[in-house]
Amino acid sequence: MPATLIDTAGRKVRLGDISAEPPKGMTRTKAEKRFAALGRELFELQDAMWGARVNGVLVVLQGRDSAGKDGTIKHVAGCLNPRGVSVTSFGVPTTEEREHDFLWRVHKHAPRRGEFALFNRSHYEDVLVVRVHDLAPKKLWQQRYGHIRDFEELLAEHGTIVLKYFLHITRDEQEERLLEREKEPETAWKLNPNDWKEREHWDEYTAAYEDAISKTAAPHAPWIIVPANSKWYRNLVVAESIVDTLREHRKNWDKKLQEMGRAGRAGLEAYRAQLGAKKKKPRKHR
Amino acid sequence: MPATLIDTAGRKVRLGDISAEPPKGMTRTKAEKRFAALGRELFELQDAMWGARVNGVLVVLQGRDSAGKDGTIKHVAGCLNPRGVSVTSFGVPTTEEREHDFLWRVHKHAPRRGEFALFNRSHYEDVLVVRVHDLAPKKLWQQRYGHIRDFEELLAEHGTIVLKYFLHITRDEQEERLLEREKEPETAWKLNPNDWKEREHWDEYTAAYEDAISKTAAPHAPWIIVPANSKWYRNLVVAESIVDTLREHRKNWDKKLQEMGRAGRAGLEAYRAQLGAKKKKPRKHR
Repeated sequence: MPATLIDTAGRKVRLGDISAEPPKGMTRTKAEKRFAALGRELFELQDAMWGARVNGVLVVLQGRDSAGKDGTIKHVAGCLNPRGVSVTSFGVPTTEEREHDFLWRVHKHAPRRGEFALFNRSHYEDVLVVRVHDLAPKKLWQQRYGHIRDFEELLAEHGTIVLKYFLHITRDEQEERLLEREKEPETAWKLNPNDWKEREHWDEYTAAYEDAISKTAAPHAPWIIVPANSKWYRNLVVAESIVDTLREHRKNWDKKLQEMGRAGRAGLEAYRAQLGAKKKKPRKHR
Repeated sequence: MPATLIDTAGRKVRLGDISAEPPKGMTRTKAEKRFAALGRELFELQDAMWGARVNGVLVVLQGRDSAGKDGTIKHVAGCLNPRGVSVTSFGVPTTEEREHDFLWRVHKHAPRRGEFALFNRSHYEDVLVVRVHDLAPKKLWQQRYGHIRDFEELLAEHGTIVLKYFLHITRDEQEERLLEREKEPETAWKLNPNDWKEREHWDEYTAAYEDAISKTAAPHAPWIIVPANSKWYRNLVVAESIVDTLREHRKNWDKKLQEMGRAGRAGLEAYRAQLGAKKKKPRKHR
């Protein structure tokens, strides 16, 4: 997969060196065809995971305004069986949420075994927007990298497959998308001068993302930097990396399902034998 | 719509008098074509509802084992944008849930404004399985009808569109479906003798459903009895009744979205004027 995978903490990440465009030779037609096939496989993988109840999945989507977090969820979660999927968007914390530690509101939405959880923004906002806008003392948000690492380790030890995506778009692409939004009357209700104000902090966000990615990447909770200037390529990269990861667990799930199937059949047979025994006259053939 | 709509409390319902089959002249091809068109309309309606943040939707799915609750969710929620959808399955209550009143665990999953919540089973189990298996004193579960009416009124007054579906299958159809499950090795893990044991209480469940439906139907929280012996017709009926209901709110949502759009544009213009003013030398033209 030509996306950049960061799975070791400490390696310095430079977003400026990573392309936001699809690789040469990749076309929309190819990408969409491949995405459709992956979608079908994802549906089957989810079904096996749901039944086996061994692992859950947590997909974290981060990116700047208009990077395509919503669109990715629509396309990727759109391939899944809605039963067993939860999508949570984390906005400005509520008063109650602010009274708790920063992981409290996030932990509540961690997937249970069998479930597929998608986060539109996440606990990472507490080292991104909080840092860029000085919403907490530096000492406080710096401690959070360690807490995030510990938290994601806890999830992983419980069997949660953690995948974190940074949807990487260029500054020009963002401008084009924001201007595009203004043209369409149906989406005018989404207009918000804040999107433009946040753009003024582009470089500060870049630094904050680079640190967040580099300080929290781990083999059990990797970051995937997704070239996201093309929506169709972005969808493909996210779907492919999820499918690649889940595929490694398939054998294990199938084994569990087979055991459950044997137990289910045995239970049915026992029930029917009991029914049969009831119908016979007691002790007749003994 | 040829499904039976019950929207007034007190009218006695007789499930035995209601057909579980598609009406004459309805074919699978027709139904699937119509369902696809409704799915597209549903997606648009949901988008408007999501933006306008005036109403939420609560779809309650009830029915016997194998009546198709999961399948309905897969098909109907499959038409929606996963962002803004929550699917909750209510199983045997946990120890913590049992320490609370019966509405506690359900209330937590009520949709917020803009959201689309689907319940696979619900608070109705507390007047169904609880009644059939004597899991609570009669006096206690009888009081629950009133609590359910009050609860659903509260939701409706908050703007929640409450739609309750009973997926109506015949006893023969259930037997066929349960036997079908045993034949397929891929679904063997779903086998559970309990499905057969519950069948022995068919008539008690019928009485419990008839009472629940008749005692809790209301104009703001109607029951729809869905002929569900054919999956393709069941999906059509549920989708159609949801779309019909949401359509009535569309004008109101669009009005709100237009207001939001005007406010958004005004905000952008003010922001740009301010940017422009900053660039000019102060007080030059005053």
